[in-house]
Amino acid sequence: MSSRSRRRRSSANTTLEDHVTEPESPTAGKFAAVQKLRKNLQNIQITTKLPRGAKLVTEKDAENLHNEIHTLMRSLVKEIDKGNPPSLELPLRGSSNIIWDEENDLLLLGEKTTIRSLSSLRTAKDVTRLIRVLEIVHELLEKDIHATKREIFYNDVRLFEDQRQSDNTIDDIGPMLGTNRESTHIVASAKGTVLGRVVLEDSGDRIDCTQLGTGGWSITPFLDRVEIIESDAEFLLIVEKDAAMLRLSEVKWWNKYPCILLTAKGSPDIASRIFARRLSKELKLPAFTLVDADPFGHYIHSVYLRGSKRLSYESPFLATPDLRLLGVLGRDLDQYNVPKECRLRMTPEDIKRAKAVMEEPFVAQNTKWVKDIRLMLKRKEKAEIQALSSHGFEFLTETYLPTKLETGDWI
Amino acid sequence: MSSRSRRRRSSANTTLEDHVTEPESPTAGKFAAVQKLRKNLQNIQITTKLPRGAKLVTEKDAENLHNEIHTLMRSLVKEIDKGNPPSLELPLRGSSNIIWDEENDLLLLGEKTTIRSLSSLRTAKDVTRLIRVLEIVHELLEKDIHATKREIFYNDVRLFEDQRQSDNTIDDIGPMLGTNRESTHIVASAKGTVLGRVVLEDSGDRIDCTQLGTGGWSITPFLDRVEIIESDAEFLLIVEKDAAMLRLSEVKWWNKYPCILLTAKGSPDIASRIFARRLSKELKLPAFTLVDADPFGHYIHSVYLRGSKRLSYESPFLATPDLRLLGVLGRDLDQYNVPKECRLRMTPEDIKRAKAVMEEPFVAQNTKWVKDIRLMLKRKEKAEIQALSSHGFEFLTETYLPTKLETGDWI
Repeated sequence: MSSRSRRRRSSANTTLEDHVTEPESPTAGKFAAVQKLRKNLQNIQITTKLPRGAKLVTEKDAENLHNEIHTLMRSLVKEIDKGNPPSLELPLRGSSNIIWDEENDLLLLGEKTTIRSLSSLRTAKDVTRLIRVLEIVHELLEKDIHATKREIFYNDVRLFEDQRQSDNTIDDIGPMLGTNRESTHIVASAKGTVLGRVVLEDSGDRIDCTQLGTGGWSITPFLDRVEIIESDAEFLLIVEKDAAMLRLSEVKWWNKYPCILLTAKGSPDIASRIFARRLSKELKLPAFTLVDADPFGHYIHSVYLRGSKRLSYESPFLATPDLRLLGVLGRDLDQYNVPKECRLRMTPEDIKRAKAVMEEPFVAQNTKWVKDIRLMLKRKEKAEIQALSSHGFEFLTETYLPTKLETGDWI
Repeated sequence: MSSRSRRRRSSANTTLEDHVTEPESPTAGKFAAVQKLRKNLQNIQITTKLPRGAKLVTEKDAENLHNEIHTLMRSLVKEIDKGNPPSLELPLRGSSNIIWDEENDLLLLGEKTTIRSLSSLRTAKDVTRLIRVLEIVHELLEKDIHATKREIFYNDVRLFEDQRQSDNTIDDIGPMLGTNRESTHIVASAKGTVLGRVVLEDSGDRIDCTQLGTGGWSITPFLDRVEIIESDAEFLLIVEKDAAMLRLSEVKWWNKYPCILLTAKGSPDIASRIFARRLSKELKLPAFTLVDADPFGHYIHSVYLRGSKRLSYESPFLATPDLRLLGVLGRDLDQYNVPKECRLRMTPEDIKRAKAVMEEPFVAQNTKWVKDIRLMLKRKEKAEIQALSSHGFEFLTETYLPTKLETGDWI
């Protein structure tokens, strides 16, 4: 394997410079269409100027964040010493104050802020909770451990009263420190698996994902401890369902087709989304999804691609904006002769979801995608990935996927 | 690591002899109570005589099963040649015809059978389906691939019409061939993870589960390809929720406490249950569960321990009959001073489930367990594993678990 990417999370913060990398000479690829996509990704040059007053939100390492919390606390103490009422200034995290520069894939916070003061009856409890969460984050960083939102709630039930309160406070901490959730060591449990051509380092262990049998590596939620060491993969394939992943892992598909496989076993959790993004970004790999040919499958693709419905503060850290929808497309059902008896009737919920997906601005502007969802709605038909096994168990791995990748037949 | 277990799946079928093994000298253990349990497990000697007419159900390797299918088909062809109506004889798989010899952990089929004939209008379609599934199993074994129930349904939708029909036929195939589902290469997707002191071999790859960072090895559903190579663990700890597993994986708990960790991330899937059983059986390890202190958590323990409600045909292949319920016990809430505000009120569903769990015969005969569920019901209180973090994030790993294991405080 050639060394392709090396990322030291222990060094300084991610800066604009990190987004600019020399293009590498592509290795000979199986699929010309995929190679072309890859070359484009490697040639991207970023030149951007931040808008006036905008603040760049970045991942921060433990040492930096730890120091920032100390600085913040010192300034608070100084105010108290001066006899001023202590207060905290928070950037608003509503969509009106967030700019996601999608072209350069940067998250910016606008100038709108709010003040929470200990001297105001209305916000005194908020400030106490903010300081308590800061204290907990400080503890997590100092001990180099992580915690879930639920554990943080249990850590001080009397103060937080209700998990919605502690969750809300946790959501404020990121913007306040100009960073993302993961940098604060607050994590959620993960359920994804990675297999194929990538070597990782997790907490000092070197993990070659081609050497993990058919099971693979369970994605850790402690992704700040993970480095992507090297890879000779030519693309990343994200599989919606583990039942479809079985077909790929069983034949060690990556041996024949140089790729990395990832599944989150249904709706993707946060760590799986972050890790999909990192694999695609750091290795500059074309990324594809394989989902069911139904509105829920296409919705899952949209979650990996862009995140939750509204642009939320965390979305850009979780998104893979260059992700392509490889299949199963509505049009594939005829194209690949999926028998009528293997297609299912759409339910009213399917129709509702299909319409909701189409209304997303980032879907609406993609004419090919809209056309495919319209086809599904017209036929009122859907099908699972597994329906392809009507042509035999190996049809997915030996015919369908290679044909799609060879011909560039994606959205 | 000392070589403790070696299992060659490619050799002959599991026989009674495989259940008898020389006791080994125990290594010095952290926890005396756990060591004692382990010594007992290693000293078990099995001497049993099968009841008259009873048929032993065993795991079978691909070659044997493949040959059996050929023999069966040949005898069918012979009948047709003779001009007799072809028919298949199936053992009944109702609980009245299944004997699980729990002491020796053997599954036996009784003498009751049913005949499905091609010449009877009522069963002609059943026989056709049985032969079709046999043909598919034959293909799976010959190609050394696996398939899910759903894929098998899609493989011949016209014949099966409805997945309930193909599932029902699949359920008949095991008893007919005197084996379990896994031996027929019909699998379900898996969602479990293993971490800690065990070395596995999966499809030729050697996997040391202490060297997989904090993520671990995703359990493969193709467990016939997996061998447990060696282990110096002294116990197996099954963790209900991955949120609790985070605490253990983060500190690489197995380094300090010699164990194997397994989680199925909620309700356990089939592969996770089979693998828990195999780790415990093949390595002769004491096995414990860590679940929520609520009726659902105790129910999860019962699923690992014994399987689904009624004794079903597959249960014994999925059960870990020596499993101990380590915690969180109802009585632990006071014992470990879980603050009142971290305890939750039981819902009517909790109460209903608690009563249902208590009524299971294998629970009812365990007085300690019944007492603990009664205590929950009396207090109408429950608590999650995470509630222990009210004493700090490290309380679970540094105080609670070591104390419980040291004092033998389990059910």
